[in-house]
Amino acid sequence: MSATRAYLDFNASAPLLERARVAMLDALSMPANPSSVHTEGREARRVLEDARRHVARLAGARPEHVIFTSGATEAAAMLLTPRWKMGRSPLGFSALYVSASDHPCVLKGGRFSPSQIKTIPVRPDGLVDLVELEALLAAHDNNAGLPLVAVHVVNNETGIVQPVEDIGRLAKAHGATTVFDAVQAAGRIPVDISSGYADYIILSSHKIGGPKGAGAVVGSADLMMPEPLIHGGGQEKGHRGGTENLAAIAGFGAAAAEAFEGLGRIAALSTMRDRFEAAILKHVPDAVIHGRDVQRVANTSFFSIPGMKAETAQIAFDLGGVALSAGSACSSGRVGPSHVLQAMGQGDEASALRVSIGHATTEQDLVLFDVALAGIAKRRKNAAGTGIQAA
Amino acid sequence: MSATRAYLDFNASAPLLERARVAMLDALSMPANPSSVHTEGREARRVLEDARRHVARLAGARPEHVIFTSGATEAAAMLLTPRWKMGRSPLGFSALYVSASDHPCVLKGGRFSPSQIKTIPVRPDGLVDLVELEALLAAHDNNAGLPLVAVHVVNNETGIVQPVEDIGRLAKAHGATTVFDAVQAAGRIPVDISSGYADYIILSSHKIGGPKGAGAVVGSADLMMPEPLIHGGGQEKGHRGGTENLAAIAGFGAAAAEAFEGLGRIAALSTMRDRFEAAILKHVPDAVIHGRDVQRVANTSFFSIPGMKAETAQIAFDLGGVALSAGSACSSGRVGPSHVLQAMGQGDEASALRVSIGHATTEQDLVLFDVALAGIAKRRKNAAGTGIQAA
Repeated sequence: MSATRAYLDFNASAPLLERARVAMLDALSMPANPSSVHTEGREARRVLEDARRHVARLAGARPEHVIFTSGATEAAAMLLTPRWKMGRSPLGFSALYVSASDHPCVLKGGRFSPSQIKTIPVRPDGLVDLVELEALLAAHDNNAGLPLVAVHVVNNETGIVQPVEDIGRLAKAHGATTVFDAVQAAGRIPVDISSGYADYIILSSHKIGGPKGAGAVVGSADLMMPEPLIHGGGQEKGHRGGTENLAAIAGFGAAAAEAFEGLGRIAALSTMRDRFEAAILKHVPDAVIHGRDVQRVANTSFFSIPGMKAETAQIAFDLGGVALSAGSACSSGRVGPSHVLQAMGQGDEASALRVSIGHATTEQDLVLFDVALAGIAKRRKNAAGTGIQAA
Repeated sequence: MSATRAYLDFNASAPLLERARVAMLDALSMPANPSSVHTEGREARRVLEDARRHVARLAGARPEHVIFTSGATEAAAMLLTPRWKMGRSPLGFSALYVSASDHPCVLKGGRFSPSQIKTIPVRPDGLVDLVELEALLAAHDNNAGLPLVAVHVVNNETGIVQPVEDIGRLAKAHGATTVFDAVQAAGRIPVDISSGYADYIILSSHKIGGPKGAGAVVGSADLMMPEPLIHGGGQEKGHRGGTENLAAIAGFGAAAAEAFEGLGRIAALSTMRDRFEAAILKHVPDAVIHGRDVQRVANTSFFSIPGMKAETAQIAFDLGGVALSAGSACSSGRVGPSHVLQAMGQGDEASALRVSIGHATTEQDLVLFDVALAGIAKRRKNAAGTGIQAA
């Protein structure tokens, strides 16, 4: 990281952990395809299976229930399909229930047709509306097929933690199968598939300090599986074809090990986040910090500066040496209103800035943020005095 | 590579080029998501676009017609679908024509239903049967939808080069769209989409000395595109969702640059391959080297030892310090008869050994191979003397 810049965008992508880098370098020195039966192939296979054990442990799952993908988006595309198998028998889902503040890769519903995708509203406080979920599931026609429920554990923009146990219990009471997008939860709060609320969990490597390019579908069992998205040479027990991305998976495994072991260090991250929020309120006393009234993960602050577009502020921060985001970083160069705030009923133009921190965040990052925000607040005050919107 | 072992399985996965390793390390030091608009995000984006230019140049394409995927298998799954768009209008393919010796990821036909997949026979010499292809396309019912033809440029097992210009001309004469799997061709023979036979080309990073985990769909234009396989946040112009695998793509770009520049050094590789084949015939005079009568790439030898199962010989080579394969390395630990030799009419039990070499192959590798094969040939001779099959 540059000494004069602060990278505060861990929820978009976290810097690579040293442990993950070392694991990748080791894997990159192996020439073979992990499917090859020779000595070199078996060495590569061992790296793959070690990583699988680490990822399984992070999710409270059995290693044989972890399927590696190229990322969380592919994992969602794989799981969100009407066509599944129970053993060798076909099994059909007739509707997908997603929450309004889910990530776009879940909201788009994978292989479900648009008419099969139903949206669960979220409440003004950002939590999935359980009353509405119950009403939706009560109205589900089980004769047409089973219900599939897909919700995030932690929101990528606000850091709000969803009531996953309640969602899972409610879904199961109505015979639904549940998929939880735990991309922003892993390493920040315990994620334990063995506790029963989730049938499937989605994980991403690069949000926990591993490299981009690896993710996983984690199951609580493997009797019921979606029709593969990518057919190939039978890799991942036939669930996902294509030569495994050995280096990225090795890095993912190392990051998963670190995330599992580091859950005890979350309190320090929370203290650091509180100091960022104190700086926000010092310079912008009327700032709105979203999700403050409900449970949030320790690394995320999502805040609005009244009278100032998040896009404008984001550019000012960048010029001031601070990398943070206005909403999520999903498609090339797009910055706009937040669909998450819209889902929370804050209007079509609602936007906010996200500070998301993690393992590499330092005191100096906080100083750089404080200085940059002081400058932005000063210009905002001056602009308010002249009646011109701060830009 | 170990000093006492020879890795001769480049077609399964090539060792990483130093140039690719350096590019990856540089990319791994970048924290950001390439979709982020801040300075760090734009730096990551630049790495991505540089790699796109290198891959485009290798394929004779324009950078804007390169879509990065997690590998060739995903690229095949993306392209092989009945549902396409011409601009914003839907466009349908009613049948997929694949060759009998294609890679499994093509043979399985992606999103086509089994009844829509037609197999083009290959001749005993390993070339796609153009007479049969013409008959199949002449019988295609254009009223039901368009024909899609998908064939490999170079066979992964034999190294045989297909008559791609003829296949392309014939397909186009019948109004077909063509997809060429150039995974084993890139860097070994010129692959130039601008010459007109291919509408789409599939490339893989780890077969040309880049890392596992990256591949590409390369188009001759972008007006006609398949329905995305992975929907997400709009990455790759909406054609492939999910945060881009920056490090793997950077390594792929570097390997593509090396492959493009290294095409002039193919003659040396051909000489080395001939020396391996001389060693084969010295120790096993009755060995059958498949595809010798037609054009092959310079790095591959696929040979059978009469009276000896390839699986048995492969294990003996491995114990003797030589990593080579018996058929392709597609699924975990499976070694069996070759579907490529079966397609060439050599019977259901036909199997062979593949030596595939490349940039890292040394004189010592040849010596190790020669010594290991001498031992295998000696045991074979002794077993023949006792009437027991060599094991």
